[in-house]
Amino acid sequence: MNQKRLDRVVANMAAQGLGQIVVSAPTSVYYLTGLYVEPMERMLALLIRDDGSCTLYANELFALPPQPDLPIKLHTDSDDPAALLAADLRPGKLGVDKWWPSKFLIGILSRRSDVVPVLGSAPVDEARMCKDAEEIAALRRASRINDGVMAAAIGAIHAGATETELADLVERTFRAQGADRSSEGQLVCFGPNGADPHHSPNDTVLRRGDSVVLDIFIPIRRYWCDMTRTVFFGAVSDEGRRVYDTVRAANEAAETMICPGIPMRDIDAAARKVITDAGYGPYFTHRLGHGCGLDCHEPPDNSSACEVLTRPGMVFSVEPGIYLPGKLGVRVEDLVLVTEGGCEVLNNYPKGIQIVE
Amino acid sequence: MNQKRLDRVVANMAAQGLGQIVVSAPTSVYYLTGLYVEPMERMLALLIRDDGSCTLYANELFALPPQPDLPIKLHTDSDDPAALLAADLRPGKLGVDKWWPSKFLIGILSRRSDVVPVLGSAPVDEARMCKDAEEIAALRRASRINDGVMAAAIGAIHAGATETELADLVERTFRAQGADRSSEGQLVCFGPNGADPHHSPNDTVLRRGDSVVLDIFIPIRRYWCDMTRTVFFGAVSDEGRRVYDTVRAANEAAETMICPGIPMRDIDAAARKVITDAGYGPYFTHRLGHGCGLDCHEPPDNSSACEVLTRPGMVFSVEPGIYLPGKLGVRVEDLVLVTEGGCEVLNNYPKGIQIVE
Repeated sequence: MNQKRLDRVVANMAAQGLGQIVVSAPTSVYYLTGLYVEPMERMLALLIRDDGSCTLYANELFALPPQPDLPIKLHTDSDDPAALLAADLRPGKLGVDKWWPSKFLIGILSRRSDVVPVLGSAPVDEARMCKDAEEIAALRRASRINDGVMAAAIGAIHAGATETELADLVERTFRAQGADRSSEGQLVCFGPNGADPHHSPNDTVLRRGDSVVLDIFIPIRRYWCDMTRTVFFGAVSDEGRRVYDTVRAANEAAETMICPGIPMRDIDAAARKVITDAGYGPYFTHRLGHGCGLDCHEPPDNSSACEVLTRPGMVFSVEPGIYLPGKLGVRVEDLVLVTEGGCEVLNNYPKGIQIVE
Repeated sequence: MNQKRLDRVVANMAAQGLGQIVVSAPTSVYYLTGLYVEPMERMLALLIRDDGSCTLYANELFALPPQPDLPIKLHTDSDDPAALLAADLRPGKLGVDKWWPSKFLIGILSRRSDVVPVLGSAPVDEARMCKDAEEIAALRRASRINDGVMAAAIGAIHAGATETELADLVERTFRAQGADRSSEGQLVCFGPNGADPHHSPNDTVLRRGDSVVLDIFIPIRRYWCDMTRTVFFGAVSDEGRRVYDTVRAANEAAETMICPGIPMRDIDAAARKVITDAGYGPYFTHRLGHGCGLDCHEPPDNSSACEVLTRPGMVFSVEPGIYLPGKLGVRVEDLVLVTEGGCEVLNNYPKGIQIVE
C-alpha cells in the first residue's frame, strides 16, 4: 500500500461521511496498492474502512503476489465473489466506485438490505486529482514522448495518405518509444471527417485543402499523454484559417487564466466565450476538457458543469474545437498542470497554423 | 430496430417476469438497434418495456442518426442523464444490464425509491446466445481469417524473436485482413511466461525448447474470433510433449461430446477429467471457455458452474490449459458452434504437436 495516498483517501472519507468504500477501478487500485489488474468480467474490489484498514477481493486467476500490508481474499470462477464482499460489510452507507459493474452492486444489495449504496468514488478521485511528484514526472515524460510522435505523424503526411495509415504510424511510433501496449486507437480525421469529434480513422484519402485533426493519446508507464493538433494539407481556405485562429485563441485564453483557486467552469467559459464571440458557439459541441493521469479521462471535468476549484498538481486537457458539418473540424488540445504560480503546459508541439506540403 | 431480435428479448422478459429493462452494453444496443456507440464515461441506455416499446438515452456527442422506429432522448455533458431515464421508469422491478456503471444505477435509486434493481441482462444475453444466420456467417468469416493470421504468426517464429515482436505481427496481420481497429492485445508467451494464462507480451527472447502460446483474438466486422495454439521452438521435452498431448486430448474430448441439450458444465467436466486423470488437475486453473460473438467473452459461460443447456446457434470457446509454474504453459483453444447434429469448429488451424525450427 502507498500509505501516503491511503491517508489522503481516508481523510477524504471522513470529510464526506463515508465509513466504508469499495474501490474497483483498476487504476485506483493501482494508485493505492501498486497492483495492476484488468479484471475483465471478473471482480476486483478494494474495501477501505474509515479506520484505514483495507481488504482486496480478487479472482485467483489475477495471480497477485501476497502483500505484507494488505489482506487479499481470493475467489475462483466458480464462486460468487459479491457474497464474500457482502459478508464483510458494515450496515449502513457503502460508497461505491462509479464504474463498478451493477452486477456486483446488485449482488450485494440482494444479500444485504441493511446496506445503502451511495456514489463513493470521490475520496479516491479527489486524492488522484492532485498528482504527487512521482506522478508529475511520469506525466511530463509521457507528454514529452507525445511531442515527438506528433512531429513524426505530421512529418508523414503526404498526398494519398489514408487516415488509417497515419493512425497506425502513430501507434507504432508510440510503441517504439515505450508506450504501454493498451491503446484505444488514435484519432486521425481528414477534411469533413474532422467535423465528428469522435470519428474513427478509415480509408479516407487525404486531399489538398483538407484539415487534418490528429488527436493522439496513449499510456506510457501507466500515465497518459493526450494532445491534438490540426494542420492543413497544401492550402487553407479563409474559413479554415478563421476557424483555426479562433480555436487557437480559445485554447490560449483558457491556458492564460489557469492558476490555483479558480472554478473549472470558468476555464471552460473563457474558451467558449472566444468561440461564441467569433460566431461559432453552436459548433463547439463538447466540454473544454477532462482530467488526465492514470486514466485518460478522469476528474476534474473541465466543463461548464464543474465547480471544482483548481489546485496545484491537477492535470487536465484544454481542447476547444469547432466542427462545421460537411466541411472541417479544428481542435487544439494541450495537457496542463496547475502549478503554485499558474500552469505548465506538459506538451510542447507548436500551435501556430501549419500548412503541410 | 431489428424486430426479430427485439421480439425474442421481449419474450424472454415475459418469461423472466421483467416489465422493464435497461440495456447498456454497446454490443447489446448494437445487436438490437444497429447503432454502435462506445459511450466511454457517458451514458448510453436502451429502455425496453414489456410491450416492446423502446427508448434510447444517449449523449448528443454520439451523433446518432435519427431512427424511424426508435425514439432517442438526448442529453449533453452538462445534464444529469440518469435523471432523464429515472423519470421514465415505472415503479417496481427494473432489470439492469450487468456492466452498467453503478454511477448511473445509484443516480436512479437516489431519485426513485420505488424502483427495485435486479440483474436484468438475461433477456438480451439469452437472445444473443443463439446466433442467427447473419451472425454465424460473420463468426465463420472471422475465424477463417484467424486461421491465416495464426499461420503467419507461427511462420514468423525465429531464434531471437521477442513476444512483443510476434504480438505486433499478429495485430498488423489482422488489420491487413480487415479487422476492426479495437484490439485488446494479443497474448504471446514464451516458455515459463506461458504458465501465467494472462501474461502480457514483453521483451522476452525466444529460446530453443520454449513452448510458445499464441492466443489471438480480434473483432472483425464486430464479431470476434479467438484461437490459441501452442507450439514448441526447436525441441520439446518429454514433459512438454506429455502436457501437450493431455491438453489436446482434453480439447478433443470436450468437442466430441458437444451437441444440443447438454449442460455446459458437463463439457467443462469432460475436459477437466482428461487433465485430472493425467495428474495435472491442479494446473488447469481456469474455466474451459466462454461464449463469443459481439463480445469476446459473453454467455454462455463454459465452466463447472454453468447449468445452461447447449442449443443450436451457441458459439463458445473450448480452451483447456496446463500451467506449470517456472516451466511452461500449454493451451489449445477453438471456437465451436453448436449445430443441430453436433458442433462445428469455426477455426481450422491444425492441432497436432508442432516443433518449429
